Amino acid sequence: MAMVLRRLAGASGSPSAAALLLRPALTRPISTGFREERDTFGPIRVPNDKLWGAQTQRSLQNFDIGGERERMPVPIIRAFGVLKKCAAKVNMEYGLDPTIGKAIMQAAEEVAEGKLDDHFPLVIWQTGSGTQSNMNANEVIANRAAEILGHKRGDKFVHPNDHVNRSQSSNDTFPTVMHIAAAVEINSRFIPSLEQLHKSLHSKSDEFKDIIKIGRTHTQDATPLTLGQEFSGYATQVGILPTYIIALLITMHFTLLVSLIDCIALSLQVKYGIDRIACTLPRMYQLAQGGTAVGTGLNTKKGFDVKIAAAVAEETELPFVTAENKFEALAAHDAFVESSGAVNTISASLMKIANDIRLLGSGPRCGLGELILPENEPGSSIMPGKG
Amino acid sequence: MAMVLRRLAGASGSPSAAALLLRPALTRPISTGFREERDTFGPIRVPNDKLWGAQTQRSLQNFDIGGERERMPVPIIRAFGVLKKCAAKVNMEYGLDPTIGKAIMQAAEEVAEGKLDDHFPLVIWQTGSGTQSNMNANEVIANRAAEILGHKRGDKFVHPNDHVNRSQSSNDTFPTVMHIAAAVEINSRFIPSLEQLHKSLHSKSDEFKDIIKIGRTHTQDATPLTLGQEFSGYATQVGILPTYIIALLITMHFTLLVSLIDCIALSLQVKYGIDRIACTLPRMYQLAQGGTAVGTGLNTKKGFDVKIAAAVAEETELPFVTAENKFEALAAHDAFVESSGAVNTISASLMKIANDIRLLGSGPRCGLGELILPENEPGSSIMPGKG
Amino acid sequence: MAMVLRRLAGASGSPSAAALLLRPALTRPISTGFREERDTFGPIRVPNDKLWGAQTQRSLQNFDIGGERERMPVPIIRAFGVLKKCAAKVNMEYGLDPTIGKAIMQAAEEVAEGKLDDHFPLVIWQTGSGTQSNMNANEVIANRAAEILGHKRGDKFVHPNDHVNRSQSSNDTFPTVMHIAAAVEINSRFIPSLEQLHKSLHSKSDEFKDIIKIGRTHTQDATPLTLGQEFSGYATQVGILPTYIIALLITMHFTLLVSLIDCIALSLQVKYGIDRIACTLPRMYQLAQGGTAVGTGLNTKKGFDVKIAAAVAEETELPFVTAENKFEALAAHDAFVESSGAVNTISASLMKIANDIRLLGSGPRCGLGELILPENEPGSSIMPGKG
Amino acid sequence: MAMVLRRLAGASGSPSAAALLLRPALTRPISTGFREERDTFGPIRVPNDKLWGAQTQRSLQNFDIGGERERMPVPIIRAFGVLKKCAAKVNMEYGLDPTIGKAIMQAAEEVAEGKLDDHFPLVIWQTGSGTQSNMNANEVIANRAAEILGHKRGDKFVHPNDHVNRSQSSNDTFPTVMHIAAAVEINSRFIPSLEQLHKSLHSKSDEFKDIIKIGRTHTQDATPLTLGQEFSGYATQVGILPTYIIALLITMHFTLLVSLIDCIALSLQVKYGIDRIACTLPRMYQLAQGGTAVGTGLNTKKGFDVKIAAAVAEETELPFVTAENKFEALAAHDAFVESSGAVNTISASLMKIANDIRLLGSGPRCGLGELILPENEPGSSIMPGKG
Repeated sequence: MAMVLRRLAGASGSPSAAALLLRPALTRPISTGFREERDTFGPIRVPNDKLWGAQTQRSLQNFDIGGERERMPVPIIRAFGVLKKCAAKVNMEYGLDPTIGKAIMQAAEEVAEGKLDDHFPLVIWQTGSGTQSNMNANEVIANRAAEILGHKRGDKFVHPNDHVNRSQSSNDTFPTVMHIAAAVEINSRFIPSLEQLHKSLHSKSDEFKDIIKIGRTHTQDATPLTLGQEFSGYATQVGILPTYIIALLITMHFTLLVSLIDCIALSLQVKYGIDRIACTLPRMYQLAQGGTAVGTGLNTKKGFDVKIAAAVAEETELPFVTAENKFEALAAHDAFVESSGAVNTISASLMKIANDIRLLGSGPRCGLGELILPENEPGSSIMPGKG
Repeated sequence: MAMVLRRLAGASGSPSAAALLLRPALTRPISTGFREERDTFGPIRVPNDKLWGAQTQRSLQNFDIGGERERMPVPIIRAFGVLKKCAAKVNMEYGLDPTIGKAIMQAAEEVAEGKLDDHFPLVIWQTGSGTQSNMNANEVIANRAAEILGHKRGDKFVHPNDHVNRSQSSNDTFPTVMHIAAAVEINSRFIPSLEQLHKSLHSKSDEFKDIIKIGRTHTQDATPLTLGQEFSGYATQVGILPTYIIALLITMHFTLLVSLIDCIALSLQVKYGIDRIACTLPRMYQLAQGGTAVGTGLNTKKGFDVKIAAAVAEETELPFVTAENKFEALAAHDAFVESSGAVNTISASLMKIANDIRLLGSGPRCGLGELILPENEPGSSIMPGKG
Repeated sequence: MAMVLRRLAGASGSPSAAALLLRPALTRPISTGFREERDTFGPIRVPNDKLWGAQTQRSLQNFDIGGERERMPVPIIRAFGVLKKCAAKVNMEYGLDPTIGKAIMQAAEEVAEGKLDDHFPLVIWQTGSGTQSNMNANEVIANRAAEILGHKRGDKFVHPNDHVNRSQSSNDTFPTVMHIAAAVEINSRFIPSLEQLHKSLHSKSDEFKDIIKIGRTHTQDATPLTLGQEFSGYATQVGILPTYIIALLITMHFTLLVSLIDCIALSLQVKYGIDRIACTLPRMYQLAQGGTAVGTGLNTKKGFDVKIAAAVAEETELPFVTAENKFEALAAHDAFVESSGAVNTISASLMKIANDIRLLGSGPRCGLGELILPENEPGSSIMPGKG
Repeated sequence: MAMVLRRLAGASGSPSAAALLLRPALTRPISTGFREERDTFGPIRVPNDKLWGAQTQRSLQNFDIGGERERMPVPIIRAFGVLKKCAAKVNMEYGLDPTIGKAIMQAAEEVAEGKLDDHFPLVIWQTGSGTQSNMNANEVIANRAAEILGHKRGDKFVHPNDHVNRSQSSNDTFPTVMHIAAAVEINSRFIPSLEQLHKSLHSKSDEFKDIIKIGRTHTQDATPLTLGQEFSGYATQVGILPTYIIALLITMHFTLLVSLIDCIALSLQVKYGIDRIACTLPRMYQLAQGGTAVGTGLNTKKGFDVKIAAAVAEETELPFVTAENKFEALAAHDAFVESSGAVNTISASLMKIANDIRLLGSGPRCGLGELILPENEPGSSIMPGKG
């Protein structure tokens, strides 16, 4: 039996042969060979066509779990690009050789733009501090910067620790990139999507203002109202809660609804949303950078924390500042628990709206049948004409 | 304001003197008999010494589940007192007989003050809209008001629906009392407790400022810091998140920590807390009252919603306003999901602090042994001297 | 067995007659004064009319939080009665003075029968090991046994630690009473209630077998089926999952549905249920008793573990055995996580059935209107005639 | 700012340009062109080098969300291969043309073996019934079978609905493949991994049997025990719970621990595990196939349900049977809630063991320092020598 089961078993845990075939560039480099990289543990072989170094390679081998679906999210990698670019800029003020500093800035900019996503193979399963992803960024940027300056990968002309990670620790960089990634996603993807949804719900609320229908309380017939009034409630509800988010939940609940809602062309006015963002993002805009290992700022320079927050703010055009207390900024991640609570609120809100629409669209003959949702797919494999 | 809020605040945390006095009568009716009450379903027997009427009695019999531990929370009942007092006041402006109106106000004030907790026997298991608790309030206040005016219980001289519930529906009163209860508990019990904790942590952070100790990252030895720095992180963490709450969670997590923390006499400065409250309570201060059954305001008067929110604000000394959109205010309870997310954040935060203290206090000889927690109980039944 | 289990089953669901009698004394002590009790911390004043001793009193004062709603559940207290009775019986085999042993057995029996619920005032907020509730049981039983033998409360003629707690530790007694309480509740309350529901759903499935109605897939009209077929699915669903439970969840979800279901007189055959119980209860029937403080059995006698499990089995008429590995039995509570997962499954199952019934009963004119649920309360405070 | 943010924003929601570059085979077919496929909605263009048809293509376009990380799990796709192979086999007994039937069996076998994973591009976001993934399987197998018989893709010589999906509905196939996938993963990956862990913990328990150490209760020093006794508790704990699982959770918690545990070379005896599996898998082995749209079996043949379950059992060498009640099997997914509860139990169990090991390994100088975990990575980016 074992052989049969092995044949059937899926590839979600560890890469099966089939999975390996499908993502060649990432896990089975068609490189013409390997080079040697080194860290404090000694030498290790790394694919020639990859920019990462020894520590990334060790983590790949030690944590061969999770596969492609559990890789470190792309927004985190982009945020490392932003942070390392800013760190190089500030480090030059504190004495970093400008030739090396500028090459680091250029390489880090490529990471920020997503040009080097392919060189960040690690999964989320790492040591607690995110050291390996920080080192992945340091190694890729160091090797790329070395290349820019005409040196070879692995020769450490630009050093991952001494140059790229200068004045930094995993314990302050990782919380920092988490904050950068979340704030960027919220501002560039979540809020704009919610604004589009509000607008859509609001216009529908207007369009439906003369359609009178039954009101219901706990599914029982109550008094009449207009469909427009019903949608104005949705509009307000969404308007009230359009704030933070974590990337996964955004995608899941929000996009799902957009699909539903766009189909029936709803819309709504942005209302309380902007105020809420103004209230809540301040905690996300506080950066841990400068606390180094435990919050004391050992091995960094006086003023580094303020300068790097200012540089990140300039780079992202978002009002990041240095965290007032680095011990709290390193040891707790309350800003994300808080965001998660807000995302949960808006998800519950959208789920309620989507469920209402689903019930109002039940039928066509034996349901509530109050909304007719446009068809865009054959709904049944056994009765292909069914809605 | 403090005194007003203290008067309204519920007894969910520890049994108040009033609660102690009231309980016996509740659970062991020493009534000498029963009287007949009526509703649209017909007559039903009610204990003579109770103020409730027919609908409360029916719910008691239909939902004989949950018992004392699942009774409607006291802060909800007090909030009904506030609301019904305000409703009578506003209804008099719209033509309610002042004799009856004033008697209702007096009876409702007794409910708000907790004098009639004993007459609210229903559990949380009811129909979806909270109709039975609304009727419990209407019936108790009607019977008590009738008595004040020299009439008998059950004679409907003051009518639960026509007089006490005038211009109201369960669908708008219940969301309204939920908002009143939560806002009062947050302002009168939760925030003051957090302020006390901040102060305590802050002073300890100062007291410990010269004690140098090891820092740790994911339990591994890292670089040194002072114990004062460690506590300043806690102080900031609590300072950051001292906002909303749901009564149950407050009691559970917060009081637990207070016990721990007070024992070792910690303290902390209030920091971001006040700002956060200013940001987030606005959604909780919006009242559904005036939407009646489905949000259209059918059977109520124009302007009733604005006037009653103003009356509640005056009564509680909190800035309640009428909700901008009643359809949303009735159909969704997003303000509570949002509060719950914030409470979850602060609970996670306090749990982290408490766990740190527990670990730092492990030992005495084979643990970390960095903090010595004072003993206040024999710790073991088999080794009574053990810490 | 039914009668034995009914005697032990707790009062968490609805107030039993005994509970009603006992509550007033608990919360409104009419004691004429106080006596002095002592522990290793020294003397402390205890109400004269209470059987508890010094350690219970200290915990009451140290953990003055949570109030009546968060008191240690009654089934736990009853289980302490069972355990302490069995411990005295086994301890007599190992040399405990029979006069004292028999008095302990008699006092413990009173605890098991619920006669002394009133003397267990502690809340669930205690030190991690449940030491205070174990000592509460030891103190109450010691004082009561002393009285039985003609001695005074507090004179320690029967000693809480040396006699009642002999060969035991909080670390093995508390997991033991958790297992006893859960197994008794599952057998005496949960399974019988599910059997009643199955029977009811099954007979309804038969009664409805000729009523043809529309089938639906994700709220869209699909092909016809009979209402009886629909209910046979419910019957199977409940039949499949009628197993473990935690007292709170049982009460909450199950009784709620019974109310709904009984109204429309449904029913169902017990199916896979009994098999499932036979499969899963074995882990709950394993008792930690005999492991003492950390699992080594220090301070207990060889064979005590096997004998006490046999005594508990005889007392409860349930097949309890001693746990094979005491380190696991003390350090982990996986049996409860497992139970909770099963309870969650059945709750999800009942929620699905209840929601279906709610939707099928929507209307009367503008809903699905396939089921007519009988009215038993006026449904609206603003439109009292509304269903 | 918008442009800056767009540049930084990650690719988790919709495929960015960079993401497109990285998974060429899947989302940017390097096909030389497109062919036309048709369904009841009319014609649509499909990449020439893909086997899927019109409905898969529509779903790809309608639900362009989630990306690679939210693609339908591979074990589900493999299970579709198993099911469709069996369906063709049984359909031949009921009159399906053997030439077509055999080609379907061959094509489906390729899906079961993972050779065609590349042709299943859909994400989990679909209509509620999984219709699109069922049609994806039908279309891929129909086109591949047509090719085997010398016909062209898209010419419907083998028809996705009439031939491959014959006697089936999405409403019974999708629950069926969920059960097949879960049962196969549990048997082929989860249980063997747990067995390996047990063995490892057990041998370590033996190896450590003479090392005496302190016992602790709630972090306080208690009485001594051996390290071997401590690990025997772990061994029992894991032995007790080695049962069902959902693929994601397996990967996450279990592999994580394996990494930790293998490092320190622990081990344990398999104990209660096998019994538990025998108890719980029976519900997972029940297949919905044969219920078609709503459970009545409309459009399928008498006996089809029993025969196909037997065929799946033969193919997988696991004891699948047809579900006794198809209404329950289609409408509820309680078997997965139950599995999830068991997975949650074992996850909690492994987390406890891992946390203990982490705490025992804290230090080296200022922690508990009882276990020394072998180093396999430089632990710090700022202090590269740190453990």
